[in-house]
Amino acid sequence: MITHIGLDDIEDLAIGSAFLGTGGGGDPYLGSLLCREAIGRYGPAPLIDVAQLADDAAVFGAAAMGAPTVMIEKLFSIEDQDRAVRSLERFLGRSASAIISLEIGGCNSMMPVAYAALRGLPIVDADGMGRAFPQLQMTSFNIAGVRCAPMTLADEHGNVILFETEDGRKAEEFARPVVAAMGAAGCMSCYPMTGAQVRRASVPGTLTAAIEIGRAVAGKQYAGRPPVERLLAALCDQPLYGDARCVFEGKITSVERVTRDGWVFGTCRIEALGGAGTATVVFQNENLSVTVDGELRCIVPDLLTIVDSETAHAIPTERLTYGQRVSVVACAAPPQLTTEAALPIVGPKGFGLTETYAPLASLSG
Amino acid sequence: MITHIGLDDIEDLAIGSAFLGTGGGGDPYLGSLLCREAIGRYGPAPLIDVAQLADDAAVFGAAAMGAPTVMIEKLFSIEDQDRAVRSLERFLGRSASAIISLEIGGCNSMMPVAYAALRGLPIVDADGMGRAFPQLQMTSFNIAGVRCAPMTLADEHGNVILFETEDGRKAEEFARPVVAAMGAAGCMSCYPMTGAQVRRASVPGTLTAAIEIGRAVAGKQYAGRPPVERLLAALCDQPLYGDARCVFEGKITSVERVTRDGWVFGTCRIEALGGAGTATVVFQNENLSVTVDGELRCIVPDLLTIVDSETAHAIPTERLTYGQRVSVVACAAPPQLTTEAALPIVGPKGFGLTETYAPLASLSG
Repeated sequence: MITHIGLDDIEDLAIGSAFLGTGGGGDPYLGSLLCREAIGRYGPAPLIDVAQLADDAAVFGAAAMGAPTVMIEKLFSIEDQDRAVRSLERFLGRSASAIISLEIGGCNSMMPVAYAALRGLPIVDADGMGRAFPQLQMTSFNIAGVRCAPMTLADEHGNVILFETEDGRKAEEFARPVVAAMGAAGCMSCYPMTGAQVRRASVPGTLTAAIEIGRAVAGKQYAGRPPVERLLAALCDQPLYGDARCVFEGKITSVERVTRDGWVFGTCRIEALGGAGTATVVFQNENLSVTVDGELRCIVPDLLTIVDSETAHAIPTERLTYGQRVSVVACAAPPQLTTEAALPIVGPKGFGLTETYAPLASLSG
Repeated sequence: MITHIGLDDIEDLAIGSAFLGTGGGGDPYLGSLLCREAIGRYGPAPLIDVAQLADDAAVFGAAAMGAPTVMIEKLFSIEDQDRAVRSLERFLGRSASAIISLEIGGCNSMMPVAYAALRGLPIVDADGMGRAFPQLQMTSFNIAGVRCAPMTLADEHGNVILFETEDGRKAEEFARPVVAAMGAAGCMSCYPMTGAQVRRASVPGTLTAAIEIGRAVAGKQYAGRPPVERLLAALCDQPLYGDARCVFEGKITSVERVTRDGWVFGTCRIEALGGAGTATVVFQNENLSVTVDGELRCIVPDLLTIVDSETAHAIPTERLTYGQRVSVVACAAPPQLTTEAALPIVGPKGFGLTETYAPLASLSG
């Protein structure tokens, strides 16, 4: 059982959360630099199970918001995250007793750990997505009825904006253009919760899961097997993600990518090496669906990640390029994301897709 | 001396502030409805001179923000203004002892009066523009070094956004897209000041000036003279606005208007009735400049208002239409707006115009 996230865990966490980021959430390498610096300076971040939280604990969500293509060039600073959380603490008149990740994907699984280390606060072994999603209302917190607001957003010039909105969709609607005006990147704190709410509304165990997935990909587990097989084995051994499989393998033959309104929209085409079959992955910051020769093989909220076939390292959507040899790995979303209440928010409809959600288990592999 | 703004003053204030609105600030008729209702229900709003303010008085700026074309269809409510001010009071931990208008133009000179009546607070006989301007940083407050933030913005759905920005330009940059997301209209509170700051940083006497201009246009003063002459006489008798003149008279022959990013940009062409000469008025929410046959006759920050030739009532930019018989009336801006510190903010450069500011007195009439 992992009780602290220390320097040795950072690489594993980065690798694992890159996979769970399903192509989005920003480059975890950048997040890992932040994490390394913070843990090096302030010591390991205590990892706390949701069961250990006091009912009235004050848990503050932390995350970066922006377009991954911009995050590559504009590194977040932990000071921005601090400004966001402290502004929210001041507004609520209570101090954080723990930090929770909004999403266990890419940069956004790392920053909260770095920030918890800075504050000497525990980081909760849970998050609000069990993966990454591109919008603020797309959380298990929101699905369970927890309010996103009050929410704060901070930029690197010391500007802080506080949103008191009716719901997460409105917070998203108002914050997104502000992030664009901030140069397409900012740090936020939102979904302030009690410990009891975290237990009811989060996806638990995801930080541990990310680290274990990372250890497998790095070869510290399941030694002797090829990387993609190790990744699949780690996923199958997780209680949270089911039906893990490789749905396609081949070479990227085209990537179309547009940055618009602070998001990255695009399509990636992959051809089988033998020439038999083409896979098409559609993404909006994160990968949303994959079809193989027109047949649906996985669709959001189930997880879909394009990994390097040789290393099993996830490739974020902003780093997909022509010629890469890749495997498209899918696994089932945590059960919180596929309920009747969840699907309108995080299912195909939530992304404006016309397809109906079909559980991974019901699709051919 | 006016000590209260009562039901009898509303029409005069609306007429006068429509003129001082220089085409912008929203339709004062809508503001006057709000004012009439509030004063009818809560009684007259005490009008307080800047000299009467205690040095440590807590004065809160109030205004609506949005595109005038939208304000026609979407009436502001005093509850939205209340939410904005009370959120700022909560954030600052102090209660307002007086309300001040951000701009003495159109809707924005009326809403603060209505709101002061609702709260039973005095409204300061001053504002931050001495006219209307389209952006938050374009105030005498900002020119004098008073911070725009913290600032709050409220919509009709109960959403409130609080901005803690480094300066007024940033507040403008972040708030404008939020207003667009709010459906292009919201109410705000900003430039919280002490009484001492108000004395140093405001344009004093503008509410009284607006009422006196309105009385003249309505024929309660300077009886027997034609309306446009009465308007000019009232302006000449004001200590605040100099060099009042009618720079052109004619018929509107074209209006081009684009609503973009929450603003209304456009051009209005007016031809002399005898056919000799054409005037071109350029506007961004407010009128910015007028040329007659290519020769500059008035440019921002000096005031420029298109009035109905028969009634001398100001025509807001969103109501300019083909065929109207109009007079283009200009007068000099209050001295606070034409200093070396002021011109980069509220002069031609502040609007992206290439012309250099030329005081009205230096231009042919």
